[in-house]
Amino acid sequence: MADDAGADDRGPGPSGYGRHEPAGPMTAGQDQPAPGAGPKVTAVGGGHGLSSTLRALRRYTARVTAVVSVADDGGSSGRLRRSTGLPAPGDLRRCLVALADPTSLWARAFEHRFVGGELDGHALGNLVIAGLAGVTGDFRSALIESARLLGVQGRVLPATAGGVVLKGDVDGVDVVGQARLSKSLRPIGAVSIVPADAPADPDAAAAVADADQVVLGPGSLFTSVLAACVVPGIRDALSSRTEGTVYVTNLRPQLPETAGMDAADLLRCVLDHRVVVHDVLVDSAAAPAEREALATLATGTGPRVHFAALGRPDRSAHDPLALGEALASLVPRRPGP
Amino acid sequence: MADDAGADDRGPGPSGYGRHEPAGPMTAGQDQPAPGAGPKVTAVGGGHGLSSTLRALRRYTARVTAVVSVADDGGSSGRLRRSTGLPAPGDLRRCLVALADPTSLWARAFEHRFVGGELDGHALGNLVIAGLAGVTGDFRSALIESARLLGVQGRVLPATAGGVVLKGDVDGVDVVGQARLSKSLRPIGAVSIVPADAPADPDAAAAVADADQVVLGPGSLFTSVLAACVVPGIRDALSSRTEGTVYVTNLRPQLPETAGMDAADLLRCVLDHRVVVHDVLVDSAAAPAEREALATLATGTGPRVHFAALGRPDRSAHDPLALGEALASLVPRRPGP
Repeated sequence: MADDAGADDRGPGPSGYGRHEPAGPMTAGQDQPAPGAGPKVTAVGGGHGLSSTLRALRRYTARVTAVVSVADDGGSSGRLRRSTGLPAPGDLRRCLVALADPTSLWARAFEHRFVGGELDGHALGNLVIAGLAGVTGDFRSALIESARLLGVQGRVLPATAGGVVLKGDVDGVDVVGQARLSKSLRPIGAVSIVPADAPADPDAAAAVADADQVVLGPGSLFTSVLAACVVPGIRDALSSRTEGTVYVTNLRPQLPETAGMDAADLLRCVLDHRVVVHDVLVDSAAAPAEREALATLATGTGPRVHFAALGRPDRSAHDPLALGEALASLVPRRPGP
Repeated sequence: MADDAGADDRGPGPSGYGRHEPAGPMTAGQDQPAPGAGPKVTAVGGGHGLSSTLRALRRYTARVTAVVSVADDGGSSGRLRRSTGLPAPGDLRRCLVALADPTSLWARAFEHRFVGGELDGHALGNLVIAGLAGVTGDFRSALIESARLLGVQGRVLPATAGGVVLKGDVDGVDVVGQARLSKSLRPIGAVSIVPADAPADPDAAAAVADADQVVLGPGSLFTSVLAACVVPGIRDALSSRTEGTVYVTNLRPQLPETAGMDAADLLRCVLDHRVVVHDVLVDSAAAPAEREALATLATGTGPRVHFAALGRPDRSAHDPLALGEALASLVPRRPGP
């Protein structure tokens, strides 16, 4: 049942949900919960969207896990994948930085991009992750050491233990490669990963299954959100949940990846990929027809739809404060004593 | 006066010198002085030789400063110089690692070299130093942050604040570039830096002037030792010293850079470059003619010559333990109370 679909913008409603209890003492001057405080929240996806979500989550919990697609094969990540054979580090790096000690010089250094010469375009953090993986012989250890360096509060895990490739159906033709898919001028149909049976990272799957709340999106629908969610072990973990999985829709179509798709189209696509969600968070600027389509998707066993003012004033992206407040209000209440 | 030139191999002798007092409590299990213990020792040079010296110095003092040539224009350093315009990081990186906490994963990571692709041959530490310099806008800050990351005990300073180029006279022709000089099949004459008036790093010059002991060599004569010593501000600081500057000669000629040169030839070349040294430490395997030539150089105001068994059993390099012991015995005794 959609509590709020089509209703006014009074924010997320009742039915076992409500404003989450304060997450505990705030760290002075940073308006963030103290280490270990707050609900267990796992965010799944990739790209800039996921790192924005992490910044929003930090406002109400210190127990954040990011489960990150490593299917990226473009840019600095793609070049490193080709030369090292490791999973794509770029989206993991962004998440590490999003959860880093904000005063850390290394957080800035990880985002530093070289200009000119053979290193042109490489983010230093990608090189550090790749180098640490080379030294330790283990990609996971490289992430753990990087997290320590950056003073990360939370965990950053790859969705799959090894590298995978994203495959999408475009007009009945298989298009292979995340970078190519993200540039497709024709509508993308179903996406999947190659190899199809790539195992999920066990800790990542557990973090999805066990969290108080799981947040999908916002971000590139096919090449970030679904790239992580269609990993079989992640999808199964999502299916095992009975509440508290929220899909945050994008503020506007992303060109060309989701050209012409409104929030209802995004949600329909997520559900078509057999990704189970219990709540959908939509910006209150949604048009009447969009709200109507969402209400239709929300009938029966469909997810509850919630509206809130989520965009920055210029609507360029979600406002971390507003998104954090809306998501905090959707954390399932734990059973009372 | 040469105390020991031509004498037997009983090790360095008297004349205001002697076994240095124990450097204070040792760190358990590592056989190294505790932080802050030991004489102030500054090592000047570059390349593998300087990092070996630093490992030897660590055995008797925790107050080590490395003053490092940044004239390198070959390999990973050279490629980074060309793409970033920064001073060469490679020799600085080696010194940071030599003075690092030996249990640090980052020390290993700094030495990790990428294999294949566009990063082939780059040491991760070089990329980190270059990236940090890009972020902070300051090469010195990059070295300080790297030292902190590695748990470095001591200081690593560039000989010059900015990048310089090494120039050498080969058969009356100027050959420009350290990498080219190191491959010269013809004898190298005088070397100098370009620009000739490049200022020394002020802290580096002070570390040379103020140290209890300064160690030059072993290592590539022209492209490491002299590349740092002929920086005018460093040479002036060396000239200001009245005792405690030791030149450690190489175990054997380095091909092709010092082909045909024995320890006496190396010392003569150092003195010809107006680099003031008070003691010369020579391996006890020196031949009679070599000892005789050294004794000649040591007459009058020439440096004292000391012999000790310094080489590893396979004579591939200096043995850090033996070199450390010999150098410790040459630290000037401080005036008694």
